[in-house]
Amino acid sequence: MTDTLPPALPAAIDESRQWARLMGMAMLGAIPHDGVNREALTPLDRQARRLLVTWAIEAGLTVSIDEMNNLFLRHEGTDPTAAPVLSGSHMDSQPSGGRFDGIWGVVAALEAVQAIREAGLATRRPIEVVSWTNEEGGRFAPGCMGSMAWSGHRPATTWDQVADGAGITFRAALDEQMAAEADLPRRPLGPQPGAAPFAYVEAHIEQGPRLEADLLDIGVVTGIQGSRWFLVDITGQSAHAGTTPVGLRRDAVQDMVRAIEALNRLTEDPEDVLRFTVGRVEVHPNSSNSVADRVRFSIDLRHPDAAVLTAKGDAIAATVQSAVKFCTAQVTERFTAMPATFQPDVPAAVEAAAAALGLRSLRLASGAFHDAQFLVPVCPTGMIFVPSRGGISHNPAEYSSPEQLAAGTRVLAATLYDLANR
Amino acid sequence: MTDTLPPALPAAIDESRQWARLMGMAMLGAIPHDGVNREALTPLDRQARRLLVTWAIEAGLTVSIDEMNNLFLRHEGTDPTAAPVLSGSHMDSQPSGGRFDGIWGVVAALEAVQAIREAGLATRRPIEVVSWTNEEGGRFAPGCMGSMAWSGHRPATTWDQVADGAGITFRAALDEQMAAEADLPRRPLGPQPGAAPFAYVEAHIEQGPRLEADLLDIGVVTGIQGSRWFLVDITGQSAHAGTTPVGLRRDAVQDMVRAIEALNRLTEDPEDVLRFTVGRVEVHPNSSNSVADRVRFSIDLRHPDAAVLTAKGDAIAATVQSAVKFCTAQVTERFTAMPATFQPDVPAAVEAAAAALGLRSLRLASGAFHDAQFLVPVCPTGMIFVPSRGGISHNPAEYSSPEQLAAGTRVLAATLYDLANR
Repeated sequence: MTDTLPPALPAAIDESRQWARLMGMAMLGAIPHDGVNREALTPLDRQARRLLVTWAIEAGLTVSIDEMNNLFLRHEGTDPTAAPVLSGSHMDSQPSGGRFDGIWGVVAALEAVQAIREAGLATRRPIEVVSWTNEEGGRFAPGCMGSMAWSGHRPATTWDQVADGAGITFRAALDEQMAAEADLPRRPLGPQPGAAPFAYVEAHIEQGPRLEADLLDIGVVTGIQGSRWFLVDITGQSAHAGTTPVGLRRDAVQDMVRAIEALNRLTEDPEDVLRFTVGRVEVHPNSSNSVADRVRFSIDLRHPDAAVLTAKGDAIAATVQSAVKFCTAQVTERFTAMPATFQPDVPAAVEAAAAALGLRSLRLASGAFHDAQFLVPVCPTGMIFVPSRGGISHNPAEYSSPEQLAAGTRVLAATLYDLANR
Repeated sequence: MTDTLPPALPAAIDESRQWARLMGMAMLGAIPHDGVNREALTPLDRQARRLLVTWAIEAGLTVSIDEMNNLFLRHEGTDPTAAPVLSGSHMDSQPSGGRFDGIWGVVAALEAVQAIREAGLATRRPIEVVSWTNEEGGRFAPGCMGSMAWSGHRPATTWDQVADGAGITFRAALDEQMAAEADLPRRPLGPQPGAAPFAYVEAHIEQGPRLEADLLDIGVVTGIQGSRWFLVDITGQSAHAGTTPVGLRRDAVQDMVRAIEALNRLTEDPEDVLRFTVGRVEVHPNSSNSVADRVRFSIDLRHPDAAVLTAKGDAIAATVQSAVKFCTAQVTERFTAMPATFQPDVPAAVEAAAAALGLRSLRLASGAFHDAQFLVPVCPTGMIFVPSRGGISHNPAEYSSPEQLAAGTRVLAATLYDLANR
């Protein structure tokens, strides 16, 4: 690798163009304190995609979308029939998210391909920049719907009835966005028979504190910890807050408190590796002088070890059932992603590219899930991390500097150039 | 009293007309299982008010509204300058409420006045039927805004900035409704100097199990337990659910759980008289894979003894502060109604009316708060309860039979006739 990296390529990465594009994207859904709220399949999402398409067309790429609204920008190879190298991430954000999670991986892939072209270089294989639909899962849970459907992990119609907070179904939102993008050429969903990508590379901010703490430039990601998502529905009885003795109530809020306490005990981990989060709570009727008759809350459970994730996750339903005292409870698992280990090819290429560029890298696993984990069964897969200030993410304060991001994009460009010429 | 009740008056109470009116009102905002969702200052509220106005005009009453949108229907006395007797309740419901809470008190007062007129009887004093604005406080907290402003307990502009779940302010909703009712004659807000009502009588369902359990017809209400409402705002930091170690989080949901546990201990009452309710919870950003940075929850605390209510309520802020572990908390008291004791006049008149009608009555205090408690400083005040099936209220299953309601309305008519001829 070292001797095949043309010096013109890293030099062609335009740090200020990439930063300007990220800041421009951050205007679409800007919220206070530099945050972004641009959820999947919203008008803001459409605006962001249009902007990306404009840049791609200016850069000479060809645009297409599939039935899941995954968006592809293709750089042609000298052998157009060769299996392409795929690189990208997602453009949707958390409802109270930052300016880099997801969007940088898409903008970086475009910047890398544009740099290859502007440096006058060619690649044997085509390179396709991809933006996967609804990675975050904030509006429509679970996340990674676009990559799950594309990779055949789940059928494309799996989430038709999933509704957002306003009652709009994923199917309705998807149909609306597809109609709004009817002018974009269509491509079939997923890798076609005998035409799997040669490799998939995703650039992303670390969303953890490790690279910053160790003064490193690049994370060579070796795999992704597993995640299991659950919904807990507690059903009691609504009653008047002033007249109903506490002892006669079937109060769903109080049983939620009991259930979360019991789950805290179940997920206690002295090593602090197991991640247990209740991030979403919906109370009905949500009136201050009515005892709640229904509560729904989410559970996000993660661990890098499949055995731990299986054991703890499988114990959740029974833990909730024995904790609720006056109500009934139902626990539904709605997303499962077992820990993923990347094939050695892409991490090795990333590591070599970082070394060739004189950057300090570290092999590490991802705490967050990413579209990349659904690519593992399809083709050699890997990810490139850059440092996140304070390890903060899913928050307006999320930050990586223009220099850190440009360094990551140089590694991505070198990796893509390497893989696309194999 | 007994010898002044003309037999034509109870006979003129039309049980089926009253039931039909209640069932008609229940169609405006009908929700499954016979429930009603007709919150204050909504289009449904306006429809219900129009319907009431139609009935009032047919019955020969004159209609007016004040700047708080309180609605008055006046039956003229033979001495129009005499202080009027006031009777009514409210027409708004809980978001998941029933068909009788509030609305029956308004429909019953209209039925009572209409019966007086149809029986060919006259009263020396005018009788005014009133519907107070936003008693429930479900959409705009706190409740009883209309009666609080009318009685001078709080200025009419106190709640201008209070917003509902959709961000609409009370002021905007009030202005919209006043504009929609611009054709109705206006009257000044509150009792005018030297023109306080002679008495106020409010008919209401019991919302408790006592009358039903003791096979009684009528509750002679002697007072109302006190209520204190608080909002607790917990502020932590949003973070990624997959990457942020649990030990490094400032998780607002977890600190809410700690606060509620501590409040449960503070409000533990072996006699089960103290009522502590967390009925409303709002989580931000409310995304299943983000640690919550903000939680707001409501506290509704009630007790018939002012000393207990003061001591427990005053301890809430410190209890929350010492319970939260990683976040900051702010506790705001937003509604206070100390226990109210009715002057003897109206309860005595209600008791005599029930006896004259051969109904079994019981003196009891109200567990729920009512507009009546804000009338106590203004004029002699009282309430009439009828049994609630199973004591259930603030719930679609709320029920009192046509016969039980008609009996209550006969007592109300006799009481109003008695008071309006003094």
